[in-house]
Amino acid sequence: MIEKSLNIENNIDIFMEIIKGFPSTMMDDYQMNVTQILVHAGRWYGEQEIVSRRSDGTIFRYNYAEALKRVKRMASSLKSLGIKVGDRVGVLEWNTHRFYELYFSIPAIGAVMVELNPRLHPLQLAKIINHSNINVLILNENFISLIESILNNIKVRKYIIITDSNQLPSTKLERIYNYEDLLNKGDVEYNIPMFDERTACYAAYTTGTTGDPKGIYYSHRSIVLNTLVISRNLTVDDTFMQLVPMFHVNGWLGFMAATLVGAKLVFPGRYTINDPEPLVSLLINEKVTVTAGVPEIFSAILNYLMKMDKKPIFTNTRILIGGSEPPLSLVIGLMGFGFQVGQGYGATETTPSVAGSVLKPKVKEKYTDKELVDLLRKQGIPTFGVDIKVVDPITGNEVPHDGKTVGEIWVRGFWVASSYYNDPRTVESFVGDGVERWWKTGDLAVVDELGYIKIVDRIKDVIKSGGEWISTIDLENYLMTHPAVSEATVIGVPHPKWGERPLAFVILRPEFEGKVNKEDLLKHLGQRFAKWQLPDDIIFVKEIPKTSVGKFDKKVLREKYRDYFSKTK
Amino acid sequence: MIEKSLNIENNIDIFMEIIKGFPSTMMDDYQMNVTQILVHAGRWYGEQEIVSRRSDGTIFRYNYAEALKRVKRMASSLKSLGIKVGDRVGVLEWNTHRFYELYFSIPAIGAVMVELNPRLHPLQLAKIINHSNINVLILNENFISLIESILNNIKVRKYIIITDSNQLPSTKLERIYNYEDLLNKGDVEYNIPMFDERTACYAAYTTGTTGDPKGIYYSHRSIVLNTLVISRNLTVDDTFMQLVPMFHVNGWLGFMAATLVGAKLVFPGRYTINDPEPLVSLLINEKVTVTAGVPEIFSAILNYLMKMDKKPIFTNTRILIGGSEPPLSLVIGLMGFGFQVGQGYGATETTPSVAGSVLKPKVKEKYTDKELVDLLRKQGIPTFGVDIKVVDPITGNEVPHDGKTVGEIWVRGFWVASSYYNDPRTVESFVGDGVERWWKTGDLAVVDELGYIKIVDRIKDVIKSGGEWISTIDLENYLMTHPAVSEATVIGVPHPKWGERPLAFVILRPEFEGKVNKEDLLKHLGQRFAKWQLPDDIIFVKEIPKTSVGKFDKKVLREKYRDYFSKTK
Repeated sequence: MIEKSLNIENNIDIFMEIIKGFPSTMMDDYQMNVTQILVHAGRWYGEQEIVSRRSDGTIFRYNYAEALKRVKRMASSLKSLGIKVGDRVGVLEWNTHRFYELYFSIPAIGAVMVELNPRLHPLQLAKIINHSNINVLILNENFISLIESILNNIKVRKYIIITDSNQLPSTKLERIYNYEDLLNKGDVEYNIPMFDERTACYAAYTTGTTGDPKGIYYSHRSIVLNTLVISRNLTVDDTFMQLVPMFHVNGWLGFMAATLVGAKLVFPGRYTINDPEPLVSLLINEKVTVTAGVPEIFSAILNYLMKMDKKPIFTNTRILIGGSEPPLSLVIGLMGFGFQVGQGYGATETTPSVAGSVLKPKVKEKYTDKELVDLLRKQGIPTFGVDIKVVDPITGNEVPHDGKTVGEIWVRGFWVASSYYNDPRTVESFVGDGVERWWKTGDLAVVDELGYIKIVDRIKDVIKSGGEWISTIDLENYLMTHPAVSEATVIGVPHPKWGERPLAFVILRPEFEGKVNKEDLLKHLGQRFAKWQLPDDIIFVKEIPKTSVGKFDKKVLREKYRDYFSKTK
Repeated sequence: MIEKSLNIENNIDIFMEIIKGFPSTMMDDYQMNVTQILVHAGRWYGEQEIVSRRSDGTIFRYNYAEALKRVKRMASSLKSLGIKVGDRVGVLEWNTHRFYELYFSIPAIGAVMVELNPRLHPLQLAKIINHSNINVLILNENFISLIESILNNIKVRKYIIITDSNQLPSTKLERIYNYEDLLNKGDVEYNIPMFDERTACYAAYTTGTTGDPKGIYYSHRSIVLNTLVISRNLTVDDTFMQLVPMFHVNGWLGFMAATLVGAKLVFPGRYTINDPEPLVSLLINEKVTVTAGVPEIFSAILNYLMKMDKKPIFTNTRILIGGSEPPLSLVIGLMGFGFQVGQGYGATETTPSVAGSVLKPKVKEKYTDKELVDLLRKQGIPTFGVDIKVVDPITGNEVPHDGKTVGEIWVRGFWVASSYYNDPRTVESFVGDGVERWWKTGDLAVVDELGYIKIVDRIKDVIKSGGEWISTIDLENYLMTHPAVSEATVIGVPHPKWGERPLAFVILRPEFEGKVNKEDLLKHLGQRFAKWQLPDDIIFVKEIPKTSVGKFDKKVLREKYRDYFSKTK
C-alpha cells in the first residue's frame, strides 16, 4: 500500500501512484467491451429500427436484432479469413449500416478497425495504411480507384468490397471478397468472446496537424465509458442521424450512444456538403430528433432550408455542433427553424468528448437571451470522466477562473490518449507520468467564474502582438457578422516590429463584390476591437484552403504569406 | 492470446477467459474512483445547492464547492485519527448532508464505509459490526442508546458523534469525537489519492433473508459505473430528493447520480412513514423534480396528499419506485397528482440497478393507457451494464421470451457481486466462474416478446400447486384492488394433497370491518383467477409483520402457519 501522495502536512503535489485497498466482492473482472453495446440493443431493443440510405437514394431498413445477427456472421467470416486478435483491418466507407456493423464485427474477433479518411491525399492514406500495418482493407467500391492509385505503396493482403450490386466491379485489386457474400457464409451463432478492456478496438489518425498523421488506438474501455456519458443525451424515443463521418474520431460515437439506449438510427450514406437535399429529406421523413456535426454541414443545411418554399420546422430536433466554434449567425439561423442547438468540444486524442454546452440554472436566471446564445457557443463545462486544467503554458500552473486569464487546456481521463502510436512526437504533446499524465491540447482558453471554458485560440494560430494576445477566432467571427462577408479567416504573420500581426482573408458574397472594400470591413471591426487588434491587411480571395475535414487550413496560408509584412513594410 | 471460447464450428459454450489483444494508446490506467464524482461537481458545478433538513425541522443550505471542501477536511481528519487504507468505518445516520459527505470522505482515504441499518434488531447490528471488523463508528446522537445496548457485544475503538448542537450528549461510549469539531480541524488542501478501482469503498448487508445478514463490498468501479448509468435520468436542471435511506444499498445511488450531473440535492434528514408532512413540504418548497423510494413511502405521501385541502400538483416531478412492485392503485393515485411514475428493479447484490421501466415506441404505438400503466409496474428492460438471463432453475437453460414461461433471473455485470464477504453461503447464490459467474436472484420471472421482464414471484415465496405456478404477487395485487382491503399478503403453505396452497392475510379498512367477509373477497378474486389459483383461506388480521425495510415479512408468516393446512384439512 503505497501512499506517496498523502503528504498532508506540506501538501506537496508529487507523482501520484495507484493505491491498492481492500478488495471488493464485485465482479470487477467483468470487462467493458464495445460489442456489449450492440448485444444489449439486439437482445433488449431488437425491434428498434436502423435506416440506411443507399447510393442510389433508396432506403434500406432493418433492426438491432438483425444487425446483431449480421455482425455475428461477419465476425465469424473475418475470423475464417485468417484475421487474428491484434490484427489491423482498415475501413474506407460512407456512413452506412455496413460501416456500423464493422464497428462491432471487427472488435468481435479482437482485431483493430482503422478508420480511414478518403478525403486525405492518397499518399497520406498510404502512410497510414503502412504505419498501422493494415493487411485487410474493407472498402466501398467507390474507393477502388483511390486504392488502385497507391497499390505500389501499400502491402494489403486482402480486400473486402462493399457494393449494393450483386457483382464485384472489375479492378486491379487482387484477393477480393464481396462483403455480403462473406457475411452470408458466416455463423450466426458466433460466440463473441470477452477481451481485456485495455485491448484496442479502433484506431484513428489526426489530420490538420503539421507533418504526417499521428495515430490513436482506442481501447474498448475508453469507447464504452465515453459512449455511456454521451448516451446521457439520448433516450429510446430519439431518432439519431449519423452525420459525422464515421472515419472521423469514431464518428463522435453518436451512433454508438444511440445503440446503447436503443434509439432509432439513421445512416445517410454518401452525401456531400454541396447537396444537402438528402439530409434534409431524412431529417423530415425519418423524424430525426438528434444529430451532430461540424458547423460547415449545418451551414449548408441552413442555406438549403432558407431557400425552401414551404419552410419546415424542427422543434423536436436537437443539434450538437462540434469540431470548431459555430458562428453566431449559424446558431441563430438554426434556432429560427426550431432546432435546439448545443456545442461540444473534443479531439481525436479524446475519443472525442471533453466539454459541452450546459445551461446551468444560474445562467438561465441571470443571462439575457443573447448571452445564453453566446454561452451555447463556448466550449462549455467539462464532461464527467475527463479532468481538465487550464494552465500557463510556461509555468504549468492553473490560471484563475476569472474569464480573462488565458491558459492552455490540458486534459486527462478515462478516454484521453496517453501517447501516439509508435510516434516520437508523443513527447511534444504529452507531459507527466502515470495518472498524472496530461495531453496538451494546444488550445488556449479562459475559464469564467461558473466554470465555462472558452477557447480563444490555438497555440500555433495565436497572435501575440507587442506582448498582447489577439484572438483570430474573435476577429473571424466578427468579420462574418458583416452582411457582405461569406467566409473569413485570420492568421498571424511575422512582423519586424510587433513580432506578429494579424492578416485577414475574406470571400465576399457575389452580390457585394466591388461594392465593399477593406476600409469598410476595418470600420466594421473597429466597432468591436481596439485599433492595435485590427488586421494589418485584408486580402479578398475567391477561396480559402481547407483541410480534409473542412476546417480552414491556416498552415497553408501561413506558409504562403510568411514574408507578407516583411516585404510590404 | 487464449481463445478457448472461439470454437465456432461446434459452438460449445465453454468457460470464457479474458483475451488480451493489441494494447491501446489510451490512459487505461486512469482509475474510476467515487471521489471523482464530488470533485467534478465541486469544481464545475460548485454553485449548485445542497439542502439538508435538520432534526429540528430547520433547513441547512450549502453547495457542491463547500461540500468538497468539507469532505477534504474530514478525510484528512479521519486519516489523522489513524484510520488506514482498507479499514472499515461504520455509519449510523439519517439522510443528511453529513451522511452524504461521509460517502466521499471515507473512500477518500481508502477506507470502506459500512452502511448500517438502525432498524435492525440490535444483536443483528452487532453481528454486522463484528463481521465487518468496524473499529471506528460514526453515528447520529439519536443512535447512542442503540449502540450502548450492544456495547458488550462489539469492539469499536472510536466513535464520532453527529449532532446539530455544540455539545456532545452524555454517554457511556468512550473515545468519542464530535463530527463538526473533527472536520474543522481538517486540512482543506487534502490531496485525494487515486485508488485501484477494484478497491472496496462501501459495504452493505442484505436483510430479509434467512439467517444472518450477508455482506457485499462494493468497488469504486462498480459504484462509478452504476452511477453513470443512473445519471442518464437526471440533468443539471433537476432537484433530486434523497428519500431512500442512505444505509440501504448505497441509497440506490440517486444522490450520487445527482452529484455527477450537478443537480440540486435535497436531504430530508430524519423522517418516518407515519408523518410524511416534512417530505411533502420539501417536495413543494424545494421544487423537487426527481425522487425515488419504496412503494410504502409513496403510499404514505399519497394518503397525505389526498387529505390536503388545497391539493398540489406535481407535473414536473418524476418518481422512481423500487424495492417491490408498486400496486396499481398507488401508481394511478400518484399519476392523479401529476407525478410521472417509473419503476426500478434491483438488489443489494447489484449496487442496485438491474432493470427499469422503459416505454418503448412500439408499446406507445400499440398499448392502451391501462396497458401502459401495467407495463410501468413490470420490472422492465435490463439496464446496460448488467447481463440478464431468465433460466429454468433446474436445467440452467434460458426460457423463451414468450411472456408465459417462468424462469429464475440470473444476473452478471459491471456492478453485480461475485460473492458474499467472508460467507460460506456464497455457494448457494452464485454459479459459474470468471466472467461466466452469475448471481441467482431467487426471483422468478417471465419475459415477453419485446424483452419486458415481469417478476411473478420469489423462488422461496412461490406457490407450486399440483405442478402449476401460482403468483402470490398477482393475488395480493388483485386483493388490494378491492375497496375494502387496506393491506394483503399471500404465502404458500405446505398442503398434503397439492404440495402447497395459497393462504391470504388481509387487513380491512376500518369502515368495512364486519361488512366484508371471506366469500366476498374470494368472489372478487374469482373474477380474475381460476378456481385452483384462489387462496384456500383468507385470514383477517390487524397487522402484517414487516421486515426492517418495510416489506411484508413472509418468512415470519410461513413459519407461524406452516401446519395450517395439515391441521385443518
